[in-house]
Amino acid sequence: MPPIAGVRLAATSAGISYDRADVLLVALPAGTSVAGVFTKSKTASAPVHWCRDILRKGGARGLVVNSGNANAFTGYEGVRAVAATTAAVAKALGCRADEVFASSTGVIGEKLPTGKVLSVVETLKQGLGEENWLAAAEAIRTTDTFAKVATRSFSIGDAPFNLNGIAKGSGMIAPDMGTMLAYVFTDATIAGDVLQAELANANALSFNAMTVDSDTSTSDTVLAFATGAGAAHPEISDSKSPHLRGFRRALRDLMSDLAHQIVRDGEGASKFVRIDISGAKSKRAARRIGLAVANSPLVKTAIAGEDPNWGRIVMAVGKAGEAADRDRLCISFGEHLVAENGVRAPNYEESVVATYMKNSEISIAVDVGVGQSRFTVWTCDFTEAYVRINADYRS
Amino acid sequence: MPPIAGVRLAATSAGISYDRADVLLVALPAGTSVAGVFTKSKTASAPVHWCRDILRKGGARGLVVNSGNANAFTGYEGVRAVAATTAAVAKALGCRADEVFASSTGVIGEKLPTGKVLSVVETLKQGLGEENWLAAAEAIRTTDTFAKVATRSFSIGDAPFNLNGIAKGSGMIAPDMGTMLAYVFTDATIAGDVLQAELANANALSFNAMTVDSDTSTSDTVLAFATGAGAAHPEISDSKSPHLRGFRRALRDLMSDLAHQIVRDGEGASKFVRIDISGAKSKRAARRIGLAVANSPLVKTAIAGEDPNWGRIVMAVGKAGEAADRDRLCISFGEHLVAENGVRAPNYEESVVATYMKNSEISIAVDVGVGQSRFTVWTCDFTEAYVRINADYRS
Repeated sequence: MPPIAGVRLAATSAGISYDRADVLLVALPAGTSVAGVFTKSKTASAPVHWCRDILRKGGARGLVVNSGNANAFTGYEGVRAVAATTAAVAKALGCRADEVFASSTGVIGEKLPTGKVLSVVETLKQGLGEENWLAAAEAIRTTDTFAKVATRSFSIGDAPFNLNGIAKGSGMIAPDMGTMLAYVFTDATIAGDVLQAELANANALSFNAMTVDSDTSTSDTVLAFATGAGAAHPEISDSKSPHLRGFRRALRDLMSDLAHQIVRDGEGASKFVRIDISGAKSKRAARRIGLAVANSPLVKTAIAGEDPNWGRIVMAVGKAGEAADRDRLCISFGEHLVAENGVRAPNYEESVVATYMKNSEISIAVDVGVGQSRFTVWTCDFTEAYVRINADYRS
Repeated sequence: MPPIAGVRLAATSAGISYDRADVLLVALPAGTSVAGVFTKSKTASAPVHWCRDILRKGGARGLVVNSGNANAFTGYEGVRAVAATTAAVAKALGCRADEVFASSTGVIGEKLPTGKVLSVVETLKQGLGEENWLAAAEAIRTTDTFAKVATRSFSIGDAPFNLNGIAKGSGMIAPDMGTMLAYVFTDATIAGDVLQAELANANALSFNAMTVDSDTSTSDTVLAFATGAGAAHPEISDSKSPHLRGFRRALRDLMSDLAHQIVRDGEGASKFVRIDISGAKSKRAARRIGLAVANSPLVKTAIAGEDPNWGRIVMAVGKAGEAADRDRLCISFGEHLVAENGVRAPNYEESVVATYMKNSEISIAVDVGVGQSRFTVWTCDFTEAYVRINADYRS
């Protein structure tokens, strides 16, 4: 991961619930613009409410994230914990508290041990450095089995810029309306409202196009920061600016990369699954059908069993509630056409497709035969390991 | 199971896919009225389309059901299979084909071996008897581990009547919009439109208030038949008739009984779970919140792990998309209040509630704090056995 001009990071252990680094601090230069998208959960966590509130003011100087405790469903104590933490970070960084963004991820309903977080703020400040990207990604993990980082470069005119992102997430992943924890940083100079529009668009095609288990978290947050501390260029303050093209491509690409890493690391997952829906009435309908297939326990367990059980795809398309023509439905697994025009394909050979299902990456394409719209969603399979992990783990 | 005056049943093996009885025939007397509710799947099976069509004509003389093959996603061949089967049954029973209802349940996308079904029609006719209720329920099973039957009695004036029902279902159970295979028979005389209204109301509170795995079948069907062959009473042709009260109570009670049997027999289930939502803005909102909790893989795996993980209940309430006040939320497991006013209850003792979770029947109550409406849904837990069954079984 290359440095992003202006971004300094530090991670350390506060002993919240893991025997490893569990608090991340990011310091940002004056003039950093910020954009965010959040869970639409009606039981959103205290830090989500805080971020939503201060986002309106438009500037960011700091970000503090802890893992091991979600500070969700913690009432007034939770609000106070956010206030105390952001105030301490603001003092350390020499900025206002409402310029400090905060996230928490981990168990729901337990009081955040604020004292533990406050006790490491000075240590974090001393440790701030431009190189600490992997340590930062490690510190925000919960059940993740690997740290999720991605980087892209792009140009504005002739000037080169970087875009770095980190994310976490493995279970309780169905950001139908928001997304998981992810943080994206660039050294370009992009106005807050333009950054917000670009983030929302990229989010719709990346984090909001994936699901692990249909369960939407209380804490989902994506924040994008533009420090403006890289090469000099006129600030981009218009969404139609041609200078935005490189950034837009890099942002979508980077966010899809992070989203796919989350799906690959889905709790208990053994296979990475891409689902392409075409022939739908609208993009929205295609997405709903795709998510119905991706969230179906019967489809997901069949994939875990390496069974090309296309009957369950038919079922899932049917239950989505969107227009589909049963008698024009076509289904492929990889290159293999298994059903067309509402019946099994004449050349379908179960043994050939069964061999395809042994791959670790599975692609399923469904044409529902009623329109021209398409959408792609990503998911993973549903294994006994998912049940084991979640029967034991307290999230 | 007592006989229902006018109803004769027979079951036999046609060798469709099981080594046991897999075809059911029911003969009904002239004058039988009929009502039905069906899956709203956009990929509904051929027999579902057939039943919906002939239901408009209002009379029923026969019912033929096979297990082992759903005759779904079978195109024109599937339509022909229904036509051939109902024609053969009509000839055997001496009625019109459009008085013969049909259902199929089992694998999706395989051609129904119509010849096998036709070859047993005469055997079935010879075997018709008033006592064969359990054999009938056995013949319609797929992954069900037990046959589902229920009976109730009721009065109209002083005259006694019976109500019998049989059902099947274990996986692909989320009749959000329709329901599973269930057949209900009474010897009272009730007009078709009255019967239809009563069936729809009872269905909303029974089959449509349960979920095993959030997956809605292509074949869900509930049919109710009133033979009018019991004790004499004036036909009930008005939904406001006071004579309807006993039947209404018996019907709701019997259909809930059958629905609960399906949930208890949920694939891989180890626990039966009742979820009471109160304090919602509307009954519809309460139902959606209840189903969000009941369908959450994280809630269901926690119950399998006997973990009183109320944080996941908070998550599921939040993701339902209906109004809920995070800071007034109250959650109980059985008699144990675990959370109130948006935080953990002061007297909550994890060890006490953990002991409660070892029961085979679990009751979860959630008050979402924004209104007066309530709804109850039933579900089961989500175990490794569900994954095993569905990674191997071809439905």
